Amino acid sequence: MSSLSSADERPAVIGIVGGVGPFAGLDLQRKILEQTVAARDQDHLPVIAVSWPARIADRTEFLLGQERVNPAQAIVEQLRLLAGAGATLAAIPCNTAHAPAIFDVVVDRLTGRGADFERPPRLLNMIDETAAHLAGRFPSLRTVGVLSTTGTWRTRLYPAALEPRGFRVVVPDETLQLETVHPAIYDPTRGIKATGAPSAWARAGLTRAIAALRDQGAEAIILGCTELPLAFPQRSLDSLPLVDPTLALARALIGAADPERLKPWTEQPEATE
Amino acid sequence: MSSLSSADERPAVIGIVGGVGPFAGLDLQRKILEQTVAARDQDHLPVIAVSWPARIADRTEFLLGQERVNPAQAIVEQLRLLAGAGATLAAIPCNTAHAPAIFDVVVDRLTGRGADFERPPRLLNMIDETAAHLAGRFPSLRTVGVLSTTGTWRTRLYPAALEPRGFRVVVPDETLQLETVHPAIYDPTRGIKATGAPSAWARAGLTRAIAALRDQGAEAIILGCTELPLAFPQRSLDSLPLVDPTLALARALIGAADPERLKPWTEQPEATE
Repeated sequence: MSSLSSADERPAVIGIVGGVGPFAGLDLQRKILEQTVAARDQDHLPVIAVSWPARIADRTEFLLGQERVNPAQAIVEQLRLLAGAGATLAAIPCNTAHAPAIFDVVVDRLTGRGADFERPPRLLNMIDETAAHLAGRFPSLRTVGVLSTTGTWRTRLYPAALEPRGFRVVVPDETLQLETVHPAIYDPTRGIKATGAPSAWARAGLTRAIAALRDQGAEAIILGCTELPLAFPQRSLDSLPLVDPTLALARALIGAADPERLKPWTEQPEATE
Repeated sequence: MSSLSSADERPAVIGIVGGVGPFAGLDLQRKILEQTVAARDQDHLPVIAVSWPARIADRTEFLLGQERVNPAQAIVEQLRLLAGAGATLAAIPCNTAHAPAIFDVVVDRLTGRGADFERPPRLLNMIDETAAHLAGRFPSLRTVGVLSTTGTWRTRLYPAALEPRGFRVVVPDETLQLETVHPAIYDPTRGIKATGAPSAWARAGLTRAIAALRDQGAEAIILGCTELPLAFPQRSLDSLPLVDPTLALARALIGAADPERLKPWTEQPEATE
């Protein structure tokens, strides 16, 4: 079964498997709107977003063996719901869900042997889109730092994608990862997933982690968990460029749906609030 | 055909007819998240949001006779898509779409004679929810001002809902409405619909309009177009209370889906960015 072919005459409709986490799903929708050339409501692209987080097990807990159910199953069901509603393109705004143990199962169920989607949406890969965005934006960059959940960190998702492209990848050491970066995302009272609006505590911990990656030679930082751009919406921190996978994914979705509607890239975006 | 009955055992799923406008659809989704008691992704309620604005004709243009197609038709199709995806509750985050010439047609197609929804979602009425929110929050308030699109203004949507409840309603005069308030929403370069992030120009015009309503005796202002809370996210302006119909609708949706998940009301919300 092939993915969306050029013979497909349906209108391009973007489907989003949101809820992983819920605020990150909104952030992707917002970035799709902000990166679209539009002067009125009707100029915006069709988007269907599902946020049904209770059904999707935590991705890091699954990757660390603390949760038995593969979140891939629920992601596939939500992709089926999106396909049924008309989505021709799809994306999952969760970096950790792109670990092979999850993402490869999703892709196999969508388009592999035994797939039972009548018309599977074309599923973009957030990690690949981020790697392409990084390479296009910083062609001479050599060393990149990555902040992420412990699931993404442990499965070395970004090193696996970036090292074959010639990048050197630096990540936090185990203490910094487990005691600072992951809690900034997951702490049940002060973490970004709990508060939506990142707390000063979460931002301070992440700022320390960014400084540590700079000390390891990072010339840019990938905010490799979709909660992290909520804490750092800007394009750089102390003149160190920040790379936002949600933004890269938003631009890739617009480009796939209707390239004429994609705004030119700018390093100096207007303020959004 | 009855709307959602108590015998319905399906999980409560919130459906949003977004895209009217697109940023307002995001604002409703964000307020649902912010008003939900949740410490982790999985605690959030299921939400399906469709934003397919190209299919929905402008509501004010229809009400003013400048557009022949009733936006109700496309709204019904998007409600059908949401129902097919599992939505049991629904809302349209566009005040103007609640004008009887549009909203009554939608309700009739959902649950009236000749309706062909197998299981129609329960559609909340944003104007009624705002009136209830206003009455609950300010029981002794007498005069309220309303800012809105020209479609809502011309059809006197808020006076019709609020005067029977004993409120006096003041609105901008025709010059202020046509030359300041409506353009702040609709101007193709500086209006909120075009920019998403409200421009200083839009905010200044709306601030003048709020001052004019205060001069007419308004003790609170209803931001009666879903683009307006994007310009004034705070709960008051110069100590004049602002009433946000999107927030009232978000809280009503949570209350209808799972009342135990609704945060207590507070006049002093934490900062959200």
